[in-house]
Amino acid sequence: MKITVYLAGHIHGNWRDEFIDNAKAKNLPIEFVGPQPNHDLSDGIGEKVLGDQPAKRYKDDAASDINNFRTQVLLQKADVVIALFGEKFKQWNTAMDASMAITLQKPTIIIRPESLIHPLKELSNKANVTVETPEQAIDVLDYLFL
Amino acid sequence: MKITVYLAGHIHGNWRDEFIDNAKAKNLPIEFVGPQPNHDLSDGIGEKVLGDQPAKRYKDDAASDINNFRTQVLLQKADVVIALFGEKFKQWNTAMDASMAITLQKPTIIIRPESLIHPLKELSNKANVTVETPEQAIDVLDYLFL
Amino acid sequence: MKITVYLAGHIHGNWRDEFIDNAKAKNLPIEFVGPQPNHDLSDGIGEKVLGDQPAKRYKDDAASDINNFRTQVLLQKADVVIALFGEKFKQWNTAMDASMAITLQKPTIIIRPESLIHPLKELSNKANVTVETPEQAIDVLDYLFL
Amino acid sequence: MKITVYLAGHIHGNWRDEFIDNAKAKNLPIEFVGPQPNHDLSDGIGEKVLGDQPAKRYKDDAASDINNFRTQVLLQKADVVIALFGEKFKQWNTAMDASMAITLQKPTIIIRPESLIHPLKELSNKANVTVETPEQAIDVLDYLFL
Amino acid sequence: MKITVYLAGHIHGNWRDEFIDNAKAKNLPIEFVGPQPNHDLSDGIGEKVLGDQPAKRYKDDAASDINNFRTQVLLQKADVVIALFGEKFKQWNTAMDASMAITLQKPTIIIRPESLIHPLKELSNKANVTVETPEQAIDVLDYLFL
Amino acid sequence: MKITVYLAGHIHGNWRDEFIDNAKAKNLPIEFVGPQPNHDLSDGIGEKVLGDQPAKRYKDDAASDINNFRTQVLLQKADVVIALFGEKFKQWNTAMDASMAITLQKPTIIIRPESLIHPLKELSNKANVTVETPEQAIDVLDYLFL
Amino acid sequence: MKITVYLAGHIHGNWRDEFIDNAKAKNLPIEFVGPQPNHDLSDGIGEKVLGDQPAKRYKDDAASDINNFRTQVLLQKADVVIALFGEKFKQWNTAMDASMAITLQKPTIIIRPESLIHPLKELSNKANVTVETPEQAIDVLDYLFL
Amino acid sequence: MKITVYLAGHIHGNWRDEFIDNAKAKNLPIEFVGPQPNHDLSDGIGEKVLGDQPAKRYKDDAASDINNFRTQVLLQKADVVIALFGEKFKQWNTAMDASMAITLQKPTIIIRPESLIHPLKELSNKANVTVETPEQAIDVLDYLFL
Repeated sequence: MKITVYLAGHIHGNWRDEFIDNAKAKNLPIEFVGPQPNHDLSDGIGEKVLGDQPAKRYKDDAASDINNFRTQVLLQKADVVIALFGEKFKQWNTAMDASMAITLQKPTIIIRPESLIHPLKELSNKANVTVETPEQAIDVLDYLFL
Repeated sequence: MKITVYLAGHIHGNWRDEFIDNAKAKNLPIEFVGPQPNHDLSDGIGEKVLGDQPAKRYKDDAASDINNFRTQVLLQKADVVIALFGEKFKQWNTAMDASMAITLQKPTIIIRPESLIHPLKELSNKANVTVETPEQAIDVLDYLFL
Repeated sequence: MKITVYLAGHIHGNWRDEFIDNAKAKNLPIEFVGPQPNHDLSDGIGEKVLGDQPAKRYKDDAASDINNFRTQVLLQKADVVIALFGEKFKQWNTAMDASMAITLQKPTIIIRPESLIHPLKELSNKANVTVETPEQAIDVLDYLFL
Repeated sequence: MKITVYLAGHIHGNWRDEFIDNAKAKNLPIEFVGPQPNHDLSDGIGEKVLGDQPAKRYKDDAASDINNFRTQVLLQKADVVIALFGEKFKQWNTAMDASMAITLQKPTIIIRPESLIHPLKELSNKANVTVETPEQAIDVLDYLFL
Repeated sequence: MKITVYLAGHIHGNWRDEFIDNAKAKNLPIEFVGPQPNHDLSDGIGEKVLGDQPAKRYKDDAASDINNFRTQVLLQKADVVIALFGEKFKQWNTAMDASMAITLQKPTIIIRPESLIHPLKELSNKANVTVETPEQAIDVLDYLFL
Repeated sequence: MKITVYLAGHIHGNWRDEFIDNAKAKNLPIEFVGPQPNHDLSDGIGEKVLGDQPAKRYKDDAASDINNFRTQVLLQKADVVIALFGEKFKQWNTAMDASMAITLQKPTIIIRPESLIHPLKELSNKANVTVETPEQAIDVLDYLFL
Repeated sequence: MKITVYLAGHIHGNWRDEFIDNAKAKNLPIEFVGPQPNHDLSDGIGEKVLGDQPAKRYKDDAASDINNFRTQVLLQKADVVIALFGEKFKQWNTAMDASMAITLQKPTIIIRPESLIHPLKELSNKANVTVETPEQAIDVLDYLFL
Repeated sequence: MKITVYLAGHIHGNWRDEFIDNAKAKNLPIEFVGPQPNHDLSDGIGEKVLGDQPAKRYKDDAASDINNFRTQVLLQKADVVIALFGEKFKQWNTAMDASMAITLQKPTIIIRPESLIHPLKELSNKANVTVETPEQAIDVLDYLFL
């Protein structure tokens, strides 16, 4: 049995690559998918496809059309969703993705530092599992196959 | 035809009371529901029902059990969800409520100031309507009955 | 038992008023709902709520946000959907409303003149009943209560 | 990860073949499906299977039985739906397919020329992405795999 | 709490009237709905609304359009479905209604004489309760309110 | 807004009457429903309706047909499910009712003494709220209306 | 693209083998599944697994448990359902299977002789396609791949 | 056609290994999944991933987060669920898993000794098939492929 995992969360740094490398090191039979990791491409994809927009808000709307399309395709094919929250960035779309996953009854893991326990308490409470580090999330995935 | 509207969003100040008063002034046939508006009661309801918890994170978890119970009962009975975002507070549970509503195909309106266009672009894009002020949201509700 | 009927279709002329009057003359226990019947208001509601938009296409997009919101609220509360097609106008949103209703397993009646049999054949085929005149649609509603 | 894309839209000309060739040129891992592209076969399939019908409208009804069957089988297996609208033809079944896809929460792209912005505004507004050319739709598909 | 019960089954004789009278004698808070009980009207409703059809099979198809519309409206509003089978008539639409109800998770009671145990064994097995007489079915409804 | 609460759990003693009395003393706008509280009637309802059965297991099967019918009707109409577990009795049908409610996304409260934390840990974990006494469950219901 | 087809209908004669052979002769990429074709095994499977039952009706009930289990497993995996009706046998479980399939939105084809148009008119009307011979049903399947 | 079977039930002894060996001996095309079979690991997985907890009930809660995550991933991928009940242990999570499976319309088999007929009568009644031994359950699986 092979499963597909969607990695929701911000697209700064290279946490996804590390996460996938660590899972591969354990030989877990998992295919990983997620949002567009290139931040400039993610913000600019609307104008890249549709051409210049009349103002920043229309550029943003055009990009989010296409980013939401990507998320909906990939998240619907996923068996598990993992959402990473950090202290920087507003990350409302991470909360949106996690809540969509939970409402669709996708098994969901949240990763967040101890400092975010209070503002994330309702979302953690609805997710299946909440952990503090990516390594712990990989331990949970590993447990599926033990 | 009477409809029920769930008012998601932070529980600081008295924006809900003003919102409901303004809707009443237009004689809209709407019943409003929402989260517990008393902030101390909302944070403390877990210990109030279950007694003292061993640490703050367990107090938070007990409270969010009961707050999520309330939200699930009331939001499932709603015909429309309105979610208010502001510049203060993290408001991840507002994003969670809006995303749950959208995924359940509840018609949803987002209210946010112009300064939040960029971080809310994906959520705005999935909602039915995004406006900048509570008055505009009432105009949209009013349009249902014209 | 009282039922709610959503009257999808173009918003020119006064066919909805006549339809509702004829149903009332038969004392059918039905509440009728439908799209905004004032054509100028329907096209302008986006700018009326959100202010001027940078171009016609943005005006259209703002209006359709709010018109789709209205349709989703009212059509989800309906027990039956009736969709009127005529020879004028493209009426793609009528087709969209009828198809949404059928996919949601709402019982659906299509009204179309004989001249439109061929272009509407797939949609007619999926609807429960297809008739040629509003009077025939009222006969079908009447049959629910015989 | 391989995905399946349903290409809704009229069956005149060879736009589907060009679309598929252009996607293949980018090596996208996509299987394309769609309606019967042979127009005479599509219109005549009812009589071909069931024999002569008593009038044109019964011929149309028999054909749409089988065309709707085909659409339902293939569209339900699709991960993504793309719907092309043009200035010719009424294309109500394209609108029907797009609306069914959106209601089933299939990620959906609409392709339409600038001249059709107004009549398609409600449907565009509900789709994930609206573009003006097939090339732009392929760019959106391409973005899934970047 | 008031419930709605759909009485599926053949439309010969007056078994529905007797059933409803017996339930009323027990003061059960139930509203009963069901198919059109007038057999001639049921078979002829298609031509009555749409005019003469070219052959008997088209008359049948037009009638079943409207009878299925009626069933879908009323059965979707029901909390409970009761299906009566007897030794006469093929009653495939009774089996169809019972199976639709069971698949939609509507609580379902089947009434059938002992002689039909074998041919109805799969359907009985999927229904909640199978009894032999209408009086027994009323006893089961009565039990809801004890 | 009035809500309906299904009280799952064993049918020994009079805990339901006390529960309902305590809720009434708080003037909560709640209608309570639940399983047949008369234990002998609950075990014997199959033979009472269908006559003597050939052995105890068939008597049990006939009774459970009708008890499951009652549960399905009433639990589907409930907005909230409360399940009481105690140290006596196996109460597998209480676990069944709670799990059905949770899977149907009904907001659910579990009441269990401290001694049952370990064997109920998975079910508690999936429910919205777990408390130790009926009074605490009433406090949670009360919180809906504060 | 490969599809799975469930062949519902009576289990007398060898119509399924012929059907599958004819489909294979056209090289259609289809896997066929269906009910247990051995009539004695189908009727006796309950006692074969569970041992002797106290009367014929209990033997029937035990068999239908297992036959319904088989149908539910295989029909849920199917992309298409084909249901054959003939003049002999009551075939209520064929009607049950077809109605379950239609309610689950599985594309469905009914095969029935001309003599059964009237008693099957409601079920035919809800199915996607109704034909008179197995060869015509294969033509419809063939059309999926043209 | 290959199917996936989830084996719910207690995790004492080696009944799952025997079950799988017996199925393999019949060459059934089945992949088996189930809960974590190592009892100490199952009870301790919460602390193993998240570190020491402040009391036994928090250890239990942390473990059940992860065990429920595992169950949800694997049971949602299963085509069939088999639940074993025995005379020892409370097994409320077995009842929870079986009820979740039945509510999700997964075909379900219950295995229980004759002594448990009475306390399991409602759950048996909702499952597709109830047998007394694992061998009988394998006979039912075998019947899928005959």
